[in-house]
Amino acid sequence: MADLVPTQRTTLHRIPKRGSYDRALVDRILDEALVGHAGFVVEGQPFVIPTTYARVGETLYVHGAAASRMLRAVGSGEPVCFTVTLLDGLVLARSAFHHSMNYRSVVVLGRARVVDDAAEKAAALDAIVEHVAPGRGREVRGPNAKELAATVVVALPIEEASAKVREGGPIDDEEDLALPCWAGHLPLALSAGAAVTAEGVRPDAPRPDWLAAWSRSR
Amino acid sequence: MADLVPTQRTTLHRIPKRGSYDRALVDRILDEALVGHAGFVVEGQPFVIPTTYARVGETLYVHGAAASRMLRAVGSGEPVCFTVTLLDGLVLARSAFHHSMNYRSVVVLGRARVVDDAAEKAAALDAIVEHVAPGRGREVRGPNAKELAATVVVALPIEEASAKVREGGPIDDEEDLALPCWAGHLPLALSAGAAVTAEGVRPDAPRPDWLAAWSRSR
Repeated sequence: MADLVPTQRTTLHRIPKRGSYDRALVDRILDEALVGHAGFVVEGQPFVIPTTYARVGETLYVHGAAASRMLRAVGSGEPVCFTVTLLDGLVLARSAFHHSMNYRSVVVLGRARVVDDAAEKAAALDAIVEHVAPGRGREVRGPNAKELAATVVVALPIEEASAKVREGGPIDDEEDLALPCWAGHLPLALSAGAAVTAEGVRPDAPRPDWLAAWSRSR
Repeated sequence: MADLVPTQRTTLHRIPKRGSYDRALVDRILDEALVGHAGFVVEGQPFVIPTTYARVGETLYVHGAAASRMLRAVGSGEPVCFTVTLLDGLVLARSAFHHSMNYRSVVVLGRARVVDDAAEKAAALDAIVEHVAPGRGREVRGPNAKELAATVVVALPIEEASAKVREGGPIDDEEDLALPCWAGHLPLALSAGAAVTAEGVRPDAPRPDWLAAWSRSR
């Protein structure tokens, strides 16, 4: 699988050592995050809307209601941006200036298309459920014809994309190292609480094995 | 403090019952989240870039390197969008179709200005450190003239904005309630691990009290 080729628009200017066009890294970040932010333009105004998604090979899929403004705009074929960010920690330096955050992010630029093919659409919708909760697709009732008609899926090729990663502790100026100030970093991660069973769940419905083990951390 | 007035662009069309123009709710979401996504347009291409920020009253501040493309574009006075999303959980329905996520998000539309006033700039930079780690501003060396010159702060008025919130369990179709399938929701939250002390921190540097108690949950 070839790495991504930087374009003028994805070439990283700020702190380029944090940037990468390594497709495996891009894929790992896209597969770990649950929510991305879709950017599109309507009458000169950019909009940034959070949405779930899934990656299948070199394609990113977003779904939503057929009536969704976001889906209509993203699927129009006009330029879009899809950004995914994992927040990994706070970086606490000895100076205010060198405070930072640890993160892994991916920016995908391109034009999306509406998925018309029924098999591709079904596979994308299944991938979106599986992306969030691996194994869940086999437990639940799949979409019926009415639900499929009410849902739009758009596909964005992961071709013009880059990743950016910052990790580790603070990088302080030499002259600040003698300050009597604690410095370091505080790791952050998304963690799951106890699952809450919905009212009316049948007593014989098996509690999914994956539920207690669900984790998104590396 | 007056609530926000919906405009044509912030009027929520999809599931409007999840939307709000309650300024206190908007402020709480902005104050809890650590990272937002700034959307701007360069030559017709939208970009969505993650960045930290702070709210001071009815203004949102973003900072970055003076050389940053993002800061230059956001501060240009062209239309921007700033979106903040807190992921609160997975919603696991009996049908694939009714799977969802619990979240709280804010979308701010508008035009940002570069902050030229020295006092406003200093206050904004302090607010950004305090936003991430309340109390940290008093512990560290503040910005010097060189650092201030290398930093751009832009201000976006929180005027045209809306919040969207989904919470609770799944809403299944009546005819799916009899399925022998577990359903419910899995709460998610950002949690802190053990702080990692940087190399070379002076042994007499006091470990901040707020560090062990740091939490971003409601």
